[in-house]
Amino acid sequence: MLPKINAAFVEKLLTGFIRDELGRHGCRKALLGLSGGLDSAVCAALAARALGPRNVLALVLPCGTGFRGEVRDAEGLARRLGIRCETIDISPQIEAYFAADPKATRLRRGNKVARERMAVLYDRSAEEGGFVLGTSNKTELLLGYGTVYGDMACAVNPMGDLYKTQVRQLAEHLRLPAAIRRKAPTAALWPGQTDEGEIGLSYDEIDEILYARFEGRKSRKEIVAAGHKPAAVDLVLGRVKASEFKRHLPPIAKLSPRSVGHDILHPYDWGR
Amino acid sequence: MLPKINAAFVEKLLTGFIRDELGRHGCRKALLGLSGGLDSAVCAALAARALGPRNVLALVLPCGTGFRGEVRDAEGLARRLGIRCETIDISPQIEAYFAADPKATRLRRGNKVARERMAVLYDRSAEEGGFVLGTSNKTELLLGYGTVYGDMACAVNPMGDLYKTQVRQLAEHLRLPAAIRRKAPTAALWPGQTDEGEIGLSYDEIDEILYARFEGRKSRKEIVAAGHKPAAVDLVLGRVKASEFKRHLPPIAKLSPRSVGHDILHPYDWGR
Repeated sequence: MLPKINAAFVEKLLTGFIRDELGRHGCRKALLGLSGGLDSAVCAALAARALGPRNVLALVLPCGTGFRGEVRDAEGLARRLGIRCETIDISPQIEAYFAADPKATRLRRGNKVARERMAVLYDRSAEEGGFVLGTSNKTELLLGYGTVYGDMACAVNPMGDLYKTQVRQLAEHLRLPAAIRRKAPTAALWPGQTDEGEIGLSYDEIDEILYARFEGRKSRKEIVAAGHKPAAVDLVLGRVKASEFKRHLPPIAKLSPRSVGHDILHPYDWGR
Repeated sequence: MLPKINAAFVEKLLTGFIRDELGRHGCRKALLGLSGGLDSAVCAALAARALGPRNVLALVLPCGTGFRGEVRDAEGLARRLGIRCETIDISPQIEAYFAADPKATRLRRGNKVARERMAVLYDRSAEEGGFVLGTSNKTELLLGYGTVYGDMACAVNPMGDLYKTQVRQLAEHLRLPAAIRRKAPTAALWPGQTDEGEIGLSYDEIDEILYARFEGRKSRKEIVAAGHKPAAVDLVLGRVKASEFKRHLPPIAKLSPRSVGHDILHPYDWGR
């Protein structure tokens, strides 16, 4: 069974990680997209403690007016944490693009929205001199449940080694509002979407299967024997396999003795 | 001195690489952004030979009307190669975004344009069921001369281990039009920009310094002793060092025994 985290220790470790990773580049400002959901709320709270609330800029980036409750929750959390916050409706540029293709599926629209949010965060980060924090958790990274070069893109990802159910434990320790902690997780790519509805399994079950596979190094057969439905195990492990490319840099054809991504990887490659 | 490539062998290797990398995922269609410049022209020619011209879709993505000559060269090349080609002006969505911030610098606008091109390519790749090919060369990757999550983002990068001057040799072997081979390299982030003007050194000199450093493993002192100006060496090596983050996945804080990006890296991690 997935163990409970020592939330106070994890908080200390992650706030130190944020300070150190930004500090290496002489930076102490961070930006992040605040959705009104759990993950970005935890990330905002960690960043506020790591850097001081005024060094954190949250961008709330709804597309149109379909997400009023989410926007209200996000803005309320920013006020509570004392971090800076701006709300920008990205629908003008999204509608300008899809005007030429009004029949685009909601998945295509959702992925375009996720990439536009990334582009707005990076544009503002250049102006602010801050780093973009990612809010993907380990469950999402392993399932590939995110938009590559969209919400999966960032400069630093503090929570990428915490399963979704562990992020919930951290949220409780950080005393985030119950409204945020208890709402159904959603990528908010379209109104009414929920992660668990779309994937077809609860995060409790997904996390147990992933934990058995990755930390426990169990085989499919052993995970099924431990009480999980074969279809659930196949669904989770199939998603992990199909999304491998989202956890790698793009492959480069190796032609020389020393290649980017193959050999040129470490500080001594570019150091003195 | 940077050796000449065996262009016929490199062509064979890279067309095989494109076929293999797409084929691993059951795919034989590719998309790429065609700028009218050298690198994307070489990539398009390789993709056409690897997959057959009708399996390649080139998107020409000017922002506004300032790049007529580039668009004409790109469209002409696509006709010559027999690949499919569409030209889409991305200025409506770029102007919609910057309407709120008309004083944005040209660098911010240029980076936003590069990320919008990526988002359009990925959106169309979902519709086409094709892979996005990257066109960054080794010189650009080592200097970090590109927009992270913009032109540096792709599914597969065939030319990432060829220095710019080697891409020129390959272009000659592939018999690309002289107009494309001889024009001054530009990221086309704003009219009149040239890479060499912006960086302040010729690609011939940059590539010699990079080759001495990476393949030759020479120290700064040895590179200067070989005849390069100290300021030029410092400029090139300084850019390599400052852009390290562009050649890595975002760092994730390690909390568990098995973490994405630290341990979960290989097929046996998700295989049977």
